[in-house]
Amino acid sequence: MYAVATIGRVESPLFDLDAAPRQGDEGAPDAWLVFEPTVRDGLSGLRPGAAIVVLTWLDRARRDILRVHPRGDTSRPEEGVFTTRSPHRPNPIGLHRVTVLAVDDLRVQVSGLEAINGTPIVDIKPVLGEVDER
Amino acid sequence: MYAVATIGRVESPLFDLDAAPRQGDEGAPDAWLVFEPTVRDGLSGLRPGAAIVVLTWLDRARRDILRVHPRGDTSRPEEGVFTTRSPHRPNPIGLHRVTVLAVDDLRVQVSGLEAINGTPIVDIKPVLGEVDER
Repeated sequence: MYAVATIGRVESPLFDLDAAPRQGDEGAPDAWLVFEPTVRDGLSGLRPGAAIVVLTWLDRARRDILRVHPRGDTSRPEEGVFTTRSPHRPNPIGLHRVTVLAVDDLRVQVSGLEAINGTPIVDIKPVLGEVDER
Repeated sequence: MYAVATIGRVESPLFDLDAAPRQGDEGAPDAWLVFEPTVRDGLSGLRPGAAIVVLTWLDRARRDILRVHPRGDTSRPEEGVFTTRSPHRPNPIGLHRVTVLAVDDLRVQVSGLEAINGTPIVDIKPVLGEVDER
C-alpha cells in the first residue's frame, strides 16, 4: 500500500457521474484544474496548447468490483475491469487526455475533461507524441 | 490521501534505474506482469495483441522534488515535474503503453516495458484508439 496525495481538484460544470460522458467523447465540458499551493513549483513551464494526461482519483468508484458489464449494458456479458475503462477497479485512477487552454497561477483550464466537479487530481504529465502514439 | 494497492509486480531483466531506457524508446525489454490472485477476475478477457496502458508505482522515486533538469541534463534549466515524465513527482505513477504478447493465468507478457524488476503495478487499462489519439 502506498499513500496517494491529492495535489488538486477538478472544477467542472459536471456534477453527476451518470451524466458524465464516457471516455471524453464529444460533449465533455472544459474544466479547471485547481492545484494546491504546495505543488506550485511543479507547474513551472506549463503553457496553453500543451497536450497533457491528467490522472485523477475517482473517489466515488467502487474498489471491490472486478467484473463489469461493458458500458453498463447488462445485456452484454461481464468483462474483467482491466479490459475496460470502468471507473470501478481496485485502484480507481482516471486517465484523461486533454489540452491546456489557459494557465493562471494554480488554475489550469483544460478542454473536454470527463470528470465531475471536485474529483481529486493526483498527477499530470505531458503527452509525448511518439511514445504515446506507439 | 488515498491508499493505492499493489495488484502485481513487474518481472523484467531491467534491474538498474539508470540503465532503464527513457520513455520506452527502442531498447526497453519485454517483461512479465505478474498479478495477485486476488485480482484474477479483473483480467478476464485480456488477450494477446491488446494495446494496454500499465500504471505502475515508481517506488524508488523521490516525492519531494518539484523541479528537475530535463532528461537529467544539468546544463538545461530546471522545469516543473508536471511538464516532464520524470519519475520524481508527488505521486510517482508511471504510465507505460505496451502490447500484450501472452497471457498465462496471472502472468501477462508485454512488449517493451520501461520499468525495473519488482516495480509495483497499480492498474492496467485498454488503450481506446480514438480517445487516446485525440
